[in-house]
Amino acid sequence: MSTLTHDRLRSLEDFILRLNAEAAQVILPLFRADHGLENKASHGAFDPVTAADKGAEAAIRQLISKSFPDHGVIGEEYGQDRPDAEFVWVLDPVDGTRAFVAGLPVWTTLIGLRYQGAPVLGLIGQAYLDEAFVGSKALGSRLIRGESSVPLQVRACPQLSDAVIATTDPGLFDAHEAAAWTDVRAKSRLARFGCDAYAYAMVALGKMDLILETGLKSWDIEAAIPVIEGAGGIVSDWHGRPIGATPALAGGQMAIGGDQACLEQALACLTQAAKG
Amino acid sequence: MSTLTHDRLRSLEDFILRLNAEAAQVILPLFRADHGLENKASHGAFDPVTAADKGAEAAIRQLISKSFPDHGVIGEEYGQDRPDAEFVWVLDPVDGTRAFVAGLPVWTTLIGLRYQGAPVLGLIGQAYLDEAFVGSKALGSRLIRGESSVPLQVRACPQLSDAVIATTDPGLFDAHEAAAWTDVRAKSRLARFGCDAYAYAMVALGKMDLILETGLKSWDIEAAIPVIEGAGGIVSDWHGRPIGATPALAGGQMAIGGDQACLEQALACLTQAAKG
Repeated sequence: MSTLTHDRLRSLEDFILRLNAEAAQVILPLFRADHGLENKASHGAFDPVTAADKGAEAAIRQLISKSFPDHGVIGEEYGQDRPDAEFVWVLDPVDGTRAFVAGLPVWTTLIGLRYQGAPVLGLIGQAYLDEAFVGSKALGSRLIRGESSVPLQVRACPQLSDAVIATTDPGLFDAHEAAAWTDVRAKSRLARFGCDAYAYAMVALGKMDLILETGLKSWDIEAAIPVIEGAGGIVSDWHGRPIGATPALAGGQMAIGGDQACLEQALACLTQAAKG
Repeated sequence: MSTLTHDRLRSLEDFILRLNAEAAQVILPLFRADHGLENKASHGAFDPVTAADKGAEAAIRQLISKSFPDHGVIGEEYGQDRPDAEFVWVLDPVDGTRAFVAGLPVWTTLIGLRYQGAPVLGLIGQAYLDEAFVGSKALGSRLIRGESSVPLQVRACPQLSDAVIATTDPGLFDAHEAAAWTDVRAKSRLARFGCDAYAYAMVALGKMDLILETGLKSWDIEAAIPVIEGAGGIVSDWHGRPIGATPALAGGQMAIGGDQACLEQALACLTQAAKG
């Protein structure tokens, strides 16, 4: 097996930004576009968010297969190709489809790279904002916006009572999870909803402190893990076990924390609800 | 009393954009800024969102008093000056402070103009996105972003079951309101939370169909009314009564609708919870 040198990782970071730009070209014309048919999507008419998701995934897959024909790809829309390859790209071109549908610019493009089974490089892109949160544990993470590139760093927040927390939708929790969330929320400073992976980026940026999710698939999280870790944060399951090689979370439960002490205070509330 | 001609309104529209730009200059450097003290805000340290709100309101008030010394001003931070003047500006420089604190670019700058007691011109600005939703019933509404200016138009959505709806926080509702919201949500297509006045702009843009809020103050809504009406939408209380001269909502209840038929289906669910 080859070794993943920093030089190699840097060149893959350039490539992931190209993939993001390619996806943006497909997605942006469809965001907030007036097709006059959106509300009839369920009756078989044109659905912009599905078109964005599928079109962007196809574009990303094409660029990967041209540049790295031996790499594997796992995507929400088009399934798996070579999932056991040394390098595997994990894609969700439009995460946060409900935000997309509602015109809210907090949907994201998620692109992760797995090397020998472990997530090593990730990107959370928000094309309408021209933002790309990109990083790796080895090289660190940064926010690229237009010509600017600033390092990402989680913030210190040793007390849960000071924490800004988030989850995508409390309605996704089962009864145990909902009770645990309510407990954590009551002990925190402020809670936000409906931001999907954009909230993960806010942890890397040092503006949020804790995210709790359930029911996640690999393409919902793998891109975020290196970005968070490269900013000094932690990604674990609800038992506090780190997400290691071949990410698979029991029941899709995930906790993202900026500060270990704060995360541990939250995990203490999650014991009864933790799966696996 | 003078008459408010279209020419006069156009020149006031230019002025409201100047006020927005002035506010943005104060707010943007504080958004996502790392002061290292934020979490200690409650213990008396520097609080960026309060600094943004106060600084921007002071800047706006200064420009108004220089340009139109006889105009009145009502603001969330610095109270009332000449609230009975023929022209009264109604200000909330940072609406959505919790989104601001969490780093999410869905806070807005709200600037409304009341003429002879009725809201005639409004602006919903999102400086980080360089977006200004501005308009009046007389001249129509538009979204200005950078060099582009596109007309705003609500979309047809005659069925509540097709509607994308939103409220800022279901936790703000009393028991009757919460039951009514749950009913409306169950009958709708998709609900979003935590967007404050940015959601109102999405109605004007034709991406959302219905917003329900409670506990609003005049500075939370007056800027939105002309923007919504200029895009063909409706702003009413929960009885369906239009917001007329001197906006005062019973219990701060407000419904914003893009389509009259959809709004009426929602209002039918709100009867028990409607105040005033």
